[in-house]
Amino acid sequence: MNSSKFAVALVHAPVLNKAGESSATSVSSIDVHDFARTCAFYDVAPVYIVHPAQGMQQFVKELTGHWLDGKRGDLNKGRREVLSQVSVVSTLEDVLAKDDYQIWYTSAQPPEDAVVVAPESLSEKEGKHLLVFGTGHGLDAKNLPNENGWLYSIDGIGKVRHLSVRAALAIYLDRLFR
Amino acid sequence: MNSSKFAVALVHAPVLNKAGESSATSVSSIDVHDFARTCAFYDVAPVYIVHPAQGMQQFVKELTGHWLDGKRGDLNKGRREVLSQVSVVSTLEDVLAKDDYQIWYTSAQPPEDAVVVAPESLSEKEGKHLLVFGTGHGLDAKNLPNENGWLYSIDGIGKVRHLSVRAALAIYLDRLFR
Repeated sequence: MNSSKFAVALVHAPVLNKAGESSATSVSSIDVHDFARTCAFYDVAPVYIVHPAQGMQQFVKELTGHWLDGKRGDLNKGRREVLSQVSVVSTLEDVLAKDDYQIWYTSAQPPEDAVVVAPESLSEKEGKHLLVFGTGHGLDAKNLPNENGWLYSIDGIGKVRHLSVRAALAIYLDRLFR
Repeated sequence: MNSSKFAVALVHAPVLNKAGESSATSVSSIDVHDFARTCAFYDVAPVYIVHPAQGMQQFVKELTGHWLDGKRGDLNKGRREVLSQVSVVSTLEDVLAKDDYQIWYTSAQPPEDAVVVAPESLSEKEGKHLLVFGTGHGLDAKNLPNENGWLYSIDGIGKVRHLSVRAALAIYLDRLFR
């Protein structure tokens, strides 16, 4: 149980692939590091890394353990602190069993009939909130728990429609906490 | 010559190391990808990757060339578009020779006597603007060209004082263009 009002989940399955099918992605070490660091910067915790495959869970545990348990963490206490908030789970349902979260999904294109809220508005809402990010081509919401709502998409003005999930997280947390 | 009012430079030398000495860092491929993508999202261009070492310059050219020249770019035209704005240079002075930029440095801790401006305020300023980011422990400003000013640091509320440079770029551009 954590005292932070906000937590984050990065979902690797079920997510959509390029063809729009339900799929899974590999965990990227840089996502774990950037999610942990950006969340620590804003005191958001825990950071749930969601992947059903045991091998991928082990990978994340070894990556974080390298800094949490070993000499490297003695030498870089900031990184140890940052990675101490990472929690590995199999499914988003496992996250919901851990605390009484309201669930907020993110997407570059929320469903048309979705309840959509500004991230800024969450700071005024009571209770605990889980911001959920998808890898691949985004959350497979039909195969995920019912959400309380979606966050407004981040709108660009350029030639591409998608940010990296690392950049999206940073922008949402900045908007939430400014 | 580019029509965008804003450009970005990611400096790998001279930057500070942990001991505060003038130093250089290696180019990280994820920085090139995330900088190129976030800038394309906001129509900021070019993205200058600054490194004096020829081997590092070659690395960036091969990384971008993989998507610009080959079949991979035919299959992923979005990534080709994104990486087409990356430009590799030896020094920040080389960037300044390319266009008439006003220079804005970024840091988690700008110098105490610095001119500091909000990123939002740049959108109202005339002319072309270069936002400069440092790798390692930040820009070695004493060994870099004189700046017009620094951007306000991004302030967190958590236990760590630094964001990844990828997250910082995303937040600054969001604040600039919202």
